[in-house]
Amino acid sequence: MTSRQGGGIVETRSVTFSPGTVLTASGACAALPELTVAFETYGTLNAAGDNAILVCHALTGNAHAAGLASPDPRSLGWWDPMIGPGRPLDTDRYCVIASNFLGGCYGTTGPTSLNPRTGTRYGMTFPAYSVRDMVHVQKALLDHLGVTSLVAVIGGSLGGMQVLEWPLCYPAMVRSIIPIATAAQHSAWCIGLNDLTRQAIMMDPAWKNGAYDPSAQPTAGLSLARQIAMVTYRSDISFDRRFRRDVAAAGPDGREQLFEVERYLRYQGEKLVARFDANTYLYITRAMDAHDVAAGRGTLDEVLGSIRVPSLNIGISSDILYPAHEQRAIAAALPRPVYREIDSPDGHDAFLIAYDQLGPFVHGFLKEIP
Amino acid sequence: MTSRQGGGIVETRSVTFSPGTVLTASGACAALPELTVAFETYGTLNAAGDNAILVCHALTGNAHAAGLASPDPRSLGWWDPMIGPGRPLDTDRYCVIASNFLGGCYGTTGPTSLNPRTGTRYGMTFPAYSVRDMVHVQKALLDHLGVTSLVAVIGGSLGGMQVLEWPLCYPAMVRSIIPIATAAQHSAWCIGLNDLTRQAIMMDPAWKNGAYDPSAQPTAGLSLARQIAMVTYRSDISFDRRFRRDVAAAGPDGREQLFEVERYLRYQGEKLVARFDANTYLYITRAMDAHDVAAGRGTLDEVLGSIRVPSLNIGISSDILYPAHEQRAIAAALPRPVYREIDSPDGHDAFLIAYDQLGPFVHGFLKEIP
Repeated sequence: MTSRQGGGIVETRSVTFSPGTVLTASGACAALPELTVAFETYGTLNAAGDNAILVCHALTGNAHAAGLASPDPRSLGWWDPMIGPGRPLDTDRYCVIASNFLGGCYGTTGPTSLNPRTGTRYGMTFPAYSVRDMVHVQKALLDHLGVTSLVAVIGGSLGGMQVLEWPLCYPAMVRSIIPIATAAQHSAWCIGLNDLTRQAIMMDPAWKNGAYDPSAQPTAGLSLARQIAMVTYRSDISFDRRFRRDVAAAGPDGREQLFEVERYLRYQGEKLVARFDANTYLYITRAMDAHDVAAGRGTLDEVLGSIRVPSLNIGISSDILYPAHEQRAIAAALPRPVYREIDSPDGHDAFLIAYDQLGPFVHGFLKEIP
Repeated sequence: MTSRQGGGIVETRSVTFSPGTVLTASGACAALPELTVAFETYGTLNAAGDNAILVCHALTGNAHAAGLASPDPRSLGWWDPMIGPGRPLDTDRYCVIASNFLGGCYGTTGPTSLNPRTGTRYGMTFPAYSVRDMVHVQKALLDHLGVTSLVAVIGGSLGGMQVLEWPLCYPAMVRSIIPIATAAQHSAWCIGLNDLTRQAIMMDPAWKNGAYDPSAQPTAGLSLARQIAMVTYRSDISFDRRFRRDVAAAGPDGREQLFEVERYLRYQGEKLVARFDANTYLYITRAMDAHDVAAGRGTLDEVLGSIRVPSLNIGISSDILYPAHEQRAIAAALPRPVYREIDSPDGHDAFLIAYDQLGPFVHGFLKEIP
């Protein structure tokens, strides 16, 4: 693997595993005739294979974490300010690896993939999978790449759930963890919110119990799901600063006069519809809701207490989805925690916005990890 | 009007006004061939007509604020612990008046009413109305009842918006105001959330652009709207205390295993569908979103600064919809404010739950109002 220059074009690559090569908690992968994993790497893996950092993405993310996917400057990776030479995840020092998780719709096998046994898309026949399954698939990818040990596993939101699962699934592989704005057990609050988004998708007649044609997915339902989520990703203060009570130039159908905030949310809904799949959204939110690091392992305190590596736990002051008090509670149960809080009005999304705070937190922590 | 004994049965009464007798800001009432207002009273109006307190209800509320509607103990009014002999709104001293607001679906003329000109329900042909229109209709009711002056106007949420409009529409009628967990200008945050609920309703094919048969309203859409709202009425802490990660006995369709929080939210959705109307929900949320006490009157500070009567402003520590900081800002702009905060994990709904705190706040304030 070769080093990438900051701002260069990065190609998403993929590897396909044959049946049975990937261990999974739920047996999801064993049921698949083949499993392809999409990934990107930034920086160079050393000969010992022990300078890698794994970046885990959130609900609608993908393997394209940094650099440009094409000459289009809008194709920049979703965490580009965090990854590159001299950046917090310093590619002069580390080999940073990002992959689309199991069951995603960005190149890794999931509900939108063709089932080679039937020649049709899996859709709702795709096996249910868990956050642990995502981790097992990432492990297979790391083995394939020659990674022997991870300096750190880092991610926010659903990415942070994978981060917490990593040292529990593969304790010998992980030297530190950085869970950001996440959950050790998905809360009733978040489960309830996720269920609203599922109901929105399934209420759309175009969903057709998941058997929709790829060219005619349930756009209204998926758009509403995204809008429900978007509101919870931000805060009242950030919305009021940005939109106030401004009126949009014109309603999209010409009839209705919308407030600017309504126009913005609908636009965000449409944007997701253009790049994501409704069935995949259902599967991933179910995996999030089932997420519980303690399941089958002991009490929550025992399980978190068994994670012996240093952890950097990052909360966000205005996060209403995975509140700062939840991050402090996770840190308190971990044996070697550092807790840092992003002071921001931008809510949960601050881990994708407040790089001026997030970057130094991560940089300061990583330099102490041997 | 005669006094009610605590726990007695209270009948909702109504009065019908002829066209043109009610002043409205938007002309909504002028367009109506007749206007009926449903109301209840508790306690006795004195000869001077100046011992009345007006209670304003929230989005899905009604005129039945206290006492039983029938021998069924579940028919208790929505704010019963606040209203009665010796209670914070003491019916031994005050005549407490509650009415269903203009455009409601509990006896006051609204989208579910028959249009006498056509013999069919108004539905989406009902004129748009504002929070100010609600206040003008309440004024007509008070005139009809012989009320000359209000000791106080009190209400939470949308009720509080009416409370803030009252001394601006009829300054000579009001001796004090008690706005609870509300807005002087509906925020971008709340507008965004309301729009999600409207989209849920309008996405349901059974909505039929509002022309649904009363026996076949858009149940899935209205249910989802209610569930979106319900989550914002509570908090992460209250949800986690109540539901944890408990699994429901069985999913409603027998196929899907639901978490208890999902079952609860769906149950709440169904409950609203059984007692509320989808078009009415659209109209009321639009009235909330248009709410702005400053509109047409000056700057927000000037307008709130012109309210010369004492105010008791009540915030709720965990309210994510109308946050405590918003209540403190309203209080800071009012000339004679008292600010009290309900310390509760129950979110916005605490004004319907935390009577042990709300009651003393209101009692302590009212005893100083001559």
